Amino acid sequence: MINDFSKRFRDLIKEDGGKIILCVLDGLGGIPYKDGKSELEVANTPNLDSLARDSAKGLHIPVEFGITPGSGPSHLALFGYDPVENIIKRGILEALGIGLVPEKNEIFARGNFAKCVQEGDKIKVLDRRAGRISTEDNKKLVQILSEKIKKIEDVEVSFYTVKEHRVCISFRGEGLSDDIGDTDPQKEGEFIRYPSVVGDATYEKEKMAKIAYQLSLEIFEVLHDKGLCILMRGFSKVPQIESFQEKWKLKALAIASYPMYRGLAKILGMDVAEIHSGTLEEQIDILKESFSVYDFFYFHFKMTDSAGEDGNFDEKVRAIEKFDSVLPKILLLKPDVLAITGDHSTPSKIGGHSFHPVPLLIYSEKRAFRDGFGRFTERDCMRGSLGTIYAVHLMPLLLAHAGRLEKFGA
Amino acid sequence: MINDFSKRFRDLIKEDGGKIILCVLDGLGGIPYKDGKSELEVANTPNLDSLARDSAKGLHIPVEFGITPGSGPSHLALFGYDPVENIIKRGILEALGIGLVPEKNEIFARGNFAKCVQEGDKIKVLDRRAGRISTEDNKKLVQILSEKIKKIEDVEVSFYTVKEHRVCISFRGEGLSDDIGDTDPQKEGEFIRYPSVVGDATYEKEKMAKIAYQLSLEIFEVLHDKGLCILMRGFSKVPQIESFQEKWKLKALAIASYPMYRGLAKILGMDVAEIHSGTLEEQIDILKESFSVYDFFYFHFKMTDSAGEDGNFDEKVRAIEKFDSVLPKILLLKPDVLAITGDHSTPSKIGGHSFHPVPLLIYSEKRAFRDGFGRFTERDCMRGSLGTIYAVHLMPLLLAHAGRLEKFGA
Repeated sequence: MINDFSKRFRDLIKEDGGKIILCVLDGLGGIPYKDGKSELEVANTPNLDSLARDSAKGLHIPVEFGITPGSGPSHLALFGYDPVENIIKRGILEALGIGLVPEKNEIFARGNFAKCVQEGDKIKVLDRRAGRISTEDNKKLVQILSEKIKKIEDVEVSFYTVKEHRVCISFRGEGLSDDIGDTDPQKEGEFIRYPSVVGDATYEKEKMAKIAYQLSLEIFEVLHDKGLCILMRGFSKVPQIESFQEKWKLKALAIASYPMYRGLAKILGMDVAEIHSGTLEEQIDILKESFSVYDFFYFHFKMTDSAGEDGNFDEKVRAIEKFDSVLPKILLLKPDVLAITGDHSTPSKIGGHSFHPVPLLIYSEKRAFRDGFGRFTERDCMRGSLGTIYAVHLMPLLLAHAGRLEKFGA
Repeated sequence: MINDFSKRFRDLIKEDGGKIILCVLDGLGGIPYKDGKSELEVANTPNLDSLARDSAKGLHIPVEFGITPGSGPSHLALFGYDPVENIIKRGILEALGIGLVPEKNEIFARGNFAKCVQEGDKIKVLDRRAGRISTEDNKKLVQILSEKIKKIEDVEVSFYTVKEHRVCISFRGEGLSDDIGDTDPQKEGEFIRYPSVVGDATYEKEKMAKIAYQLSLEIFEVLHDKGLCILMRGFSKVPQIESFQEKWKLKALAIASYPMYRGLAKILGMDVAEIHSGTLEEQIDILKESFSVYDFFYFHFKMTDSAGEDGNFDEKVRAIEKFDSVLPKILLLKPDVLAITGDHSTPSKIGGHSFHPVPLLIYSEKRAFRDGFGRFTERDCMRGSLGTIYAVHLMPLLLAHAGRLEKFGA
């Protein structure tokens, strides 16, 4: 994957230029399924189709040929970050996913309630998911733990229910590092681990490992009568990633209703619009109201992915049509550049994320190639003027279309 | 060129998943020649065309834009190895090409019979190819040398006729290194060289250099009356390349009748099917019989390349039609993934290997995009959903289509 744009050309990026709207229809791409057609091909999308004729079309590879990405890496790539060098670990993703607002040095771990038994001074794992207990039971356990355990040494500890057997644990205190391994042995019949230290040992890493293991022991003590403990994974704080504004010289607003996407945008230093109802109409209203204030709008639409994940072809078609119906309102704002794409494909035939290239269009009255043919479908995007590109190339293309890149060389 | 897949994503490769057949029609790609059409466009290929409509199509660049590869590098790239970092040197390729089965520490050199003359204690080269002597004469000289020279010090030496003035020499003994330069000065009027040592000097390299030079002297002594010696190049043993199975977690069988391709597969640790008649039908029978035993099948078909090399357009058309006729038998096996491509292009208009992108199709009922149009030709592959990719991206794509890659990130 090629992502040295920032290193090689960052001096070309201008402070001014046109406004850019990037609409991410989550999981947009599909593959032929019903009557040999994809969801985009079946959907009735007069507005997208008309825009597709007036736009440059193409496909993007989210991370790499053959790689099926999670939403974290695929969004990082769309925003122009190398998704392999900028890994966002499990703990922080889980925290963002349930809507927590991480403090700067707060460390999060993803946890599983697990059936355990004492052997000597160790805790042996019997069932890594405690029989997939209900979310209700999870909440009760979290309440008990929250009352009984508030601190380990000088470190504040908080517990949050996620879903079923899954919890999120936060650690707040001075001098902690997230460069430690898991307490989760990943296998039943093995013991809860004293976390290893990643790389060279430091006081901060050793302290964090000690606190995490001590917490495991105290959790087991509190839940001893139920034979439960918590296995912890992916210790992480907010990662040190260059801000979107620093990287691209764009003042950006995220208009997304799902916690994880809002969290990701926050990690990149974008402003994140407050959302109340979470409807597409509300998102459009926010876009309108804030249009004069920002240079770049990340507009996220989740329904396409949810339907694809459920393997529900018709529902994904409806989600696409829903977006199509609000598109004229976006066009009324006359953005200098409007890009519409997905973060990855979620074909309902597969019922999950996939590695397939994702349809993409870039509309810009001033600077975009006008393909002049076809609809906004995978098959027509294949033949579009943008070709098939890596997702990390999208941001430079958007800047270029917005007149935000100087000429290179004389 | 991009080939860090193994480094960045190898943890995603699963031990299980679907079966993959990779059919390599050697030298498949062509350029328009007769009536402005390529061989694939003229050929009558109902089975390939029907499959092409049901498959994802594209083109691959074997090594790099503009690079015309030999069969060694182009196959390495198809198997997902960086063909520049994994050079297979001349000696071992020559040995494999004539069907030798290298022992682990055996060293091979490619040799030329050359006209020489003594000057002092040195041997001066007059004609580097000894007037391109006939293969018959070559055989007689090899017989003489084989009788007179069996060992240099404790190292066993063997001579093999290749063709015309070309021979292959093998060295078997303890403590030998292939990291030495050539005895061939590459220029007429210069002296046969005492091989240089590559990198830091070691006992093994110095021993090999001494043996090789001593052998040159003894050959010249035996053939002194004819004024002939042998110039040696590309000393090499079987290279240390990560095995295909280790790299991709696939148990692989090579079904190829030509020695060089069998040899390459062996170097990569694939099992290599025994071949008797060498017909396409025999290859199909082997595929059928072994289908339950392996995960990955490398199926090599040579005729397309041979015809192209001969500049014989009609013969290449017939070769393509021949493969088309057996395709239904391959499809009957219901592989999870079937890829059909070439290792490089050999347009009969050019009469040799070329740098042109090579047609490619990937068929997978479960996961491939179904392009739904066109035939299996260069022109239709250009517009296919796979786009134009580097050959080293093929293996990750095949794994992805076979469901053999985990999701990357959350």
